[in-house]
Amino acid sequence: MNLTTLIKQIGTKKTLLSVGIDPVLDRIPGKVRSGKHPLYDFGREIVDATEKFAIAYKINTAFFEAYGSQGWAQMERLADYIKSKYPDMLLIADAKRSDVSHSSKMYARAFFRQMPFDAVTINPYLGKDAVMPFLEYENKWVIILGLTSNPSAWDIQLIQEIDTRDYVFEKVFKYGAWWGTPEQVMFVAGATFAYKLQQIRHIVPDHFLLVPGVGVQGGDLSEVCFFGLNKNYGLIINSSRSIIYASEGDDFAEAAANKAHEMQQQMAKEIENFKKSQRRRI
Amino acid sequence: MNLTTLIKQIGTKKTLLSVGIDPVLDRIPGKVRSGKHPLYDFGREIVDATEKFAIAYKINTAFFEAYGSQGWAQMERLADYIKSKYPDMLLIADAKRSDVSHSSKMYARAFFRQMPFDAVTINPYLGKDAVMPFLEYENKWVIILGLTSNPSAWDIQLIQEIDTRDYVFEKVFKYGAWWGTPEQVMFVAGATFAYKLQQIRHIVPDHFLLVPGVGVQGGDLSEVCFFGLNKNYGLIINSSRSIIYASEGDDFAEAAANKAHEMQQQMAKEIENFKKSQRRRI
Repeated sequence: MNLTTLIKQIGTKKTLLSVGIDPVLDRIPGKVRSGKHPLYDFGREIVDATEKFAIAYKINTAFFEAYGSQGWAQMERLADYIKSKYPDMLLIADAKRSDVSHSSKMYARAFFRQMPFDAVTINPYLGKDAVMPFLEYENKWVIILGLTSNPSAWDIQLIQEIDTRDYVFEKVFKYGAWWGTPEQVMFVAGATFAYKLQQIRHIVPDHFLLVPGVGVQGGDLSEVCFFGLNKNYGLIINSSRSIIYASEGDDFAEAAANKAHEMQQQMAKEIENFKKSQRRRI
Repeated sequence: MNLTTLIKQIGTKKTLLSVGIDPVLDRIPGKVRSGKHPLYDFGREIVDATEKFAIAYKINTAFFEAYGSQGWAQMERLADYIKSKYPDMLLIADAKRSDVSHSSKMYARAFFRQMPFDAVTINPYLGKDAVMPFLEYENKWVIILGLTSNPSAWDIQLIQEIDTRDYVFEKVFKYGAWWGTPEQVMFVAGATFAYKLQQIRHIVPDHFLLVPGVGVQGGDLSEVCFFGLNKNYGLIINSSRSIIYASEGDDFAEAAANKAHEMQQQMAKEIENFKKSQRRRI
């Protein structure tokens, strides 16, 4: 999948939504849970119910690995299902991988060749070596963890450098933009630090940002859009639990669709507002 | 597995060797490659041939994921084989995982409950949240990436903090020692920065260090031991390719055994020298 298709999808569907698929067996309704492939079946139903309102699905590998090779097989099957039925959907492996180059090459093979993912999240602690093997694949992205949304993100990411006064996360955005173009590299930028998106946009005006941590509040979403949108939209906003567990009953797919629809409508408004403000500037 | 057993194993076997299992299908001899479970069979033969000379096996998840759920299933089987046949062997998943806490919890389940690993390598970029869920398991370790052995390790790890003048990797060692005791936490410290081990030993005098990147040269090994050994040995020195691909012919297991034996003998000498120097100090 390429950048033009992604931008076109956002424009047509008027949504920035990525649905995060983090299935926990205990929270899957009994009807689906008792089947032979509960993670796959649950994911498939979520995807079919929400695809009109989303431009991306983010599969979190942790939630499949926890169920062993059976879990991994269901992840493979789900990835195949999504890309064959919805080829223009951005399919993200939230794997947070990173290793020295000869190992990183094997991860790239796992997610881009063995499975049909369009993008993989990558941890920058090992530097450039961990990222480069992924960039050898055309029309695929690495999504580098810049600023994460968790409480202890500051432990390392907010260390300030002596020479440049840059924070570590700022260095990561600078490096990432140097390692790859917006057609190759995106960044994770947590919504819990929405005010920092302005700072981040100065460093990477053109790259897409994957924003996790947006809750159900329109407030946060507005703030993220205000600071994060750019001329190519430039934002993918992920929501996992508030969509996939909108109901834990047998109506889970319908409830997920409703929640995704609601978020899509908020996003459509934000996009419209942004466009208006851009027109005013001209 | 607990710290006492690990220390006892090193003392009895007079070795610090971890054998890294990074199987690439193209490099596995035809006899094994043509079987139904080539990664597992290759790993099993390597383990049986080298177990006298090693106290740990490090399985790199990248090399199994590259072959999909079939690869993952072979990793599960290999892990089960090693821990059931050699229960006192430290079994490390070199997975370099890290995520926000509810996802990290699922990774911990994957490696510690679903599979019988004793230790998992963890990337510190997300801070404490990524580490804590692993510490809930008794007699298991997280091995935090401190200073890695790859050329671009300096991108992030050698950023110097404005307030403390600490480098990022030093902060990671400080944090790690605060998050967990030597019975819970170890660190990766690359051999390509052997002279930095002295600095690291000041921060973490008691924690075990997993040292990758030691080549075939006795020189490096001596340097690592000189700076890294402590009263409980405190070092696990990993070698992957130089052992498992010592021969790529049908004699690969025998060649691996010879190489592992050679390294074990060098290590035994280093341990002996260290003990002598300790006695002199008293």
